[in-house]
Amino acid sequence: MRPGEPDDLRLDARLNRERILVAAREVFAERGIDAPMAAVARRAGVGVATLYRRFPTREALVRGAFADQMAACTRVLDEAVDDPDPWRGFRRLVEELCRLQSEERGFPEAFLAAFPDEAREHAQARAGAERAFTGLVRRAQAAGALRPDFHASDLLVVLVAHGGLVTALPGDRAASRRLVAYLLEGFRAGPRRGALPPPSPADFGSLPLTGGRSA
Amino acid sequence: MRPGEPDDLRLDARLNRERILVAAREVFAERGIDAPMAAVARRAGVGVATLYRRFPTREALVRGAFADQMAACTRVLDEAVDDPDPWRGFRRLVEELCRLQSEERGFPEAFLAAFPDEAREHAQARAGAERAFTGLVRRAQAAGALRPDFHASDLLVVLVAHGGLVTALPGDRAASRRLVAYLLEGFRAGPRRGALPPPSPADFGSLPLTGGRSA
Repeated sequence: MRPGEPDDLRLDARLNRERILVAAREVFAERGIDAPMAAVARRAGVGVATLYRRFPTREALVRGAFADQMAACTRVLDEAVDDPDPWRGFRRLVEELCRLQSEERGFPEAFLAAFPDEAREHAQARAGAERAFTGLVRRAQAAGALRPDFHASDLLVVLVAHGGLVTALPGDRAASRRLVAYLLEGFRAGPRRGALPPPSPADFGSLPLTGGRSA
Repeated sequence: MRPGEPDDLRLDARLNRERILVAAREVFAERGIDAPMAAVARRAGVGVATLYRRFPTREALVRGAFADQMAACTRVLDEAVDDPDPWRGFRRLVEELCRLQSEERGFPEAFLAAFPDEAREHAQARAGAERAFTGLVRRAQAAGALRPDFHASDLLVVLVAHGGLVTALPGDRAASRRLVAYLLEGFRAGPRRGALPPPSPADFGSLPLTGGRSA
């Protein structure tokens, strides 16, 4: 065995893994997160067996493909919650999550897919994120900046609608930013507000994995 | 020839046509407006030749399938434009178009598909609708009810985002109504408005026929 071989093998494995993850992001963006695993393998130029050896389930592949975005998402939430001005924190959270959606189609579905109810660990992570967000909402409402009838599920409504927009009009940053700006104005506390209809029963767990794509 | 035969034939033809249109609406809702014509024929239980004899092009089929919705859409616009209170007319227009979207998935794409730039007649119909809408926007702005930086293309942004929402969360009327209510609040003229980013360059002609489905 030559001295360099184990390192070379590790490098090969890493490159293979990276190639699969790039291919997965591309295929998910084009065909949705329920695209066949074989399509990802084909795009990556690896065999299906190799793909399954590295990523035994679709969930593992999705999680790997969007690990960076997921980390960005957590960072955005942490920063929003830490902002001493809760309305500014809330506003930035909505803007940044939508910006992440614009940059990587398929990401919202990935975000939701990464928190399946079955996996206890991730159910806890999701519950923690939801608690943090709900706390931010309450503080922004107590500060008189966010309307009192804003409901935590409205964030889901925003992300699903905005996800549909970036899928239909990819690259149209103006459309994305206008939608977000109008919604944030709608969220502001203020006079002359009509009563809202009751909140959506949807929660992140109930959303279909395929997001804005098909039923 | 028996006396009743021509009538029976006409009845048969009408039933066949109706069956095809019902099947087309179902298939478009499930698979998008670019679903194979053969899938529509299969669902309707007719041969592909029969389908093409009645609807020689996909556009003719789309137009037939959504003729009622199209008429409803025109009626909604006429009523909005005729409302003596331009803000109420504007608000009802947004609410009613979104309600139509919620009731019939595939409809926004159909609406857009029915006005292709190539067909002169429909280009004129679309231009007329756009003129009517722009006039309503100006009057609602002049009345001080609609924010002065609202742009006609924002209606497209709303319909595309809302279309993504009803595709991802079919039947969730609460989500649809919350989104619309927030956006209408965002459209209202009022104090403390931040500057909006520039309008989207999108127009109804530039939207992909497949709407919120795939690129």
